[in-house]
Amino acid sequence: MNFVVIGGDAAGMSAASRAKRKQSEMKVIVLEKSQDVSYSACGMPYNIADPGRDIEELVVRRADVFREKQGIDLLTGHLVESILPAEQQVVGTTAEGTPFSFPYDKLLIASGASSVKPNVPGIDLPGVMALKSLADGRRIKQFIKENQTRRVVVVGMGYIALEMSEAFRALGLEVSMLKPNPNLLPWLERSCAEVVQEELTSCSVELMFGQSLKAVEAYEGGLRAVCNDTTIETDMVLVAMGVQPSSGIARAAGLELSVGDSIAVNKNLQTSDDHIYAAGDCADAVHVVTGAKAWVPLALRANRAGWAVADNVCGKEKELPGIVGTAVFKVFDLEVARTGLNMQEAADAGFEPAGVTIKTRSKAHAHPGNTTICVHMVGDVASGRLLGVQMVGKEGVAHRINAPAVALHTQMTVEAFGESDLAYAPPFGPTWDPLLTAANQLIKKL
Amino acid sequence: MNFVVIGGDAAGMSAASRAKRKQSEMKVIVLEKSQDVSYSACGMPYNIADPGRDIEELVVRRADVFREKQGIDLLTGHLVESILPAEQQVVGTTAEGTPFSFPYDKLLIASGASSVKPNVPGIDLPGVMALKSLADGRRIKQFIKENQTRRVVVVGMGYIALEMSEAFRALGLEVSMLKPNPNLLPWLERSCAEVVQEELTSCSVELMFGQSLKAVEAYEGGLRAVCNDTTIETDMVLVAMGVQPSSGIARAAGLELSVGDSIAVNKNLQTSDDHIYAAGDCADAVHVVTGAKAWVPLALRANRAGWAVADNVCGKEKELPGIVGTAVFKVFDLEVARTGLNMQEAADAGFEPAGVTIKTRSKAHAHPGNTTICVHMVGDVASGRLLGVQMVGKEGVAHRINAPAVALHTQMTVEAFGESDLAYAPPFGPTWDPLLTAANQLIKKL
Repeated sequence: MNFVVIGGDAAGMSAASRAKRKQSEMKVIVLEKSQDVSYSACGMPYNIADPGRDIEELVVRRADVFREKQGIDLLTGHLVESILPAEQQVVGTTAEGTPFSFPYDKLLIASGASSVKPNVPGIDLPGVMALKSLADGRRIKQFIKENQTRRVVVVGMGYIALEMSEAFRALGLEVSMLKPNPNLLPWLERSCAEVVQEELTSCSVELMFGQSLKAVEAYEGGLRAVCNDTTIETDMVLVAMGVQPSSGIARAAGLELSVGDSIAVNKNLQTSDDHIYAAGDCADAVHVVTGAKAWVPLALRANRAGWAVADNVCGKEKELPGIVGTAVFKVFDLEVARTGLNMQEAADAGFEPAGVTIKTRSKAHAHPGNTTICVHMVGDVASGRLLGVQMVGKEGVAHRINAPAVALHTQMTVEAFGESDLAYAPPFGPTWDPLLTAANQLIKKL
Repeated sequence: MNFVVIGGDAAGMSAASRAKRKQSEMKVIVLEKSQDVSYSACGMPYNIADPGRDIEELVVRRADVFREKQGIDLLTGHLVESILPAEQQVVGTTAEGTPFSFPYDKLLIASGASSVKPNVPGIDLPGVMALKSLADGRRIKQFIKENQTRRVVVVGMGYIALEMSEAFRALGLEVSMLKPNPNLLPWLERSCAEVVQEELTSCSVELMFGQSLKAVEAYEGGLRAVCNDTTIETDMVLVAMGVQPSSGIARAAGLELSVGDSIAVNKNLQTSDDHIYAAGDCADAVHVVTGAKAWVPLALRANRAGWAVADNVCGKEKELPGIVGTAVFKVFDLEVARTGLNMQEAADAGFEPAGVTIKTRSKAHAHPGNTTICVHMVGDVASGRLLGVQMVGKEGVAHRINAPAVALHTQMTVEAFGESDLAYAPPFGPTWDPLLTAANQLIKKL
């Protein structure tokens, strides 16, 4: 059996490794367009923040290990240009310009996502960067090292933009962030978002709302980021406006697409063609809270979906229940986390949402080092179900979000969640965990 | 209606406050034997660790606030000596020696627990301490301040003993801990317990296993802790051998007792007498994983049970589902947490347990500051259910335990738990959370 995998990142290499481990006689071919496989993409901002660290440290497993130790036919520099479902073939061109084609019995599309790139003049100038691939990371590190970089304009204010702004500040750069929308993190409850905004401001990050990038211009002193209302002189521009699924070849092959042009898959990770699977940032997933399809390109789902594809390809049927939209990021000294739906998403999904926002201490009464945790919790008036939680705080947020995440998977009510036996000790929280206090408040509205 | 509460700590004051808030016309009488109500008992070790902090900081709400602002008849120095269920009366004596009696329509026994005190010669000598009440905490702080305290012997190695050893080391004291049992934390999986033991040793805490306290003797230089095999010269002895429910008056009143002589209550917190409730460290609870009664005297349950009693007394029927045995404590730089059952408890409860222990990084690949997290997970071979989790590590343990705690409440299988959408970002964990890695390993054994 020929198992061909397009893309050698999280989902692709997880699937290839597991398939080969389960069935060593299987021919597993991975076609990766870049030269890099299996690296910690999410770790790039933290590596860039530290000029003393080599970005190659982020490589988890080198290509030759996959080839020699695991017996995977890993072909880097192989760009797949089309899938021919009728012939069960993929065709493409190598980095050297040589055409190739491979037949498959089962195909996995794990082509990931690509940075959204605004179509404005000057977007390809040196010093205009994105951060998606390891090559992008190398380029940013090298640019900062080789140039007298003092100023950076970050276009976008999503979590990559925020993580990178923190990295740039750690390097001593002046940072201006811009976006057209008037709100920081619009998915986040306003008073929680204000906490994040205060943190950014206190860390000397300039936030420019209502600004779109119209052009980048080079001049003798560096670059100019031309926006609708202003022009900012800078040394570097980081475009971090989000990502889009790399689903072009899937669309061209006639496969069904889904939310945000992600590739539609069933719970077995099969596309609309039984022989073709999709996993990772290019594919959709079921949102367990809404029951509807969602596109949430995150690393855990990619790894897990890769494994599930391998199981299915190897004949052990494996369904994945889906996601609940759990995410966390760090921005300076704050942890920001979410799971499930916010008020708007809940209303859009047909629920009758009620929400509360509370601020409590991060530790017990009178315990040294107390900080504030902000919890926003959403429930459904009709069913009493817990629908989502958002949290912001200096400590104890990142792992705390997992308790409501599990509750969402099991469709727990707010009342039942509020009665759960959570851990307490003075260094880690008040007797009533902030999540329980939020649930106790929310129950009154349900 | 007369609502009488015996005991003015977590459960008692929670019940009294909520009942009065719900029904302001209700007469709420709290009879507390000591002079202290509503303080953070769990915070005492951290306060004692810092000579610059006044122990009175731990008082959450002063008695006069309960009296004047909340209208509760809070009577301190009132020791209840017996309950007369037929007459619906409690009788006792004040600290000044005056007898009292109060009739009740509903009674709550929230008498808490008391330190286990070994019946050995010299146990009442000055310098022999326990830590249960705020008065105990004051006494310890004062003793250390007023005496040239350089050495302390801690009898017991439970979590209070460990927290206090950390406090004593913070004060620069030499600490020896002793217990008869050959194992540290026998409920904890051995390789996890070894991590704790190494931490204690590296923090210069002397651990003496196989030693029982036989006597305490005073001599001109201080105290001698006489054990079966050795005698230790010391300035202070802390007896921290655990607690027992203060259920004597309940037993004498003919109320049904339960595990460890705790007072048996139903899900409404009613004892075997319909007019009498019990809550807090004196009462039992249903263990949701086993379905059997358990006695786990912890603060969250006490507060929650107090509230539930108030609801029931006020005519709004409230059942509590029970506990899952979640607990966490800090010991030096380690966080130690558990929820649910260990292998032995699972076998004793009739399950067919399988367990795994894994060690993983606390952060993503190549992220600075990585430490090790040790996860022990237990599942049931017959049903596939998750039964329990234990964790030890320097970070990310305390709040992480709450995800499996919620999973236990909803009787999740290990497989379903392993498929849950937990948060990931490089500063907070690997892509596969340590809990998910443990679940992935455990599934293979189920």
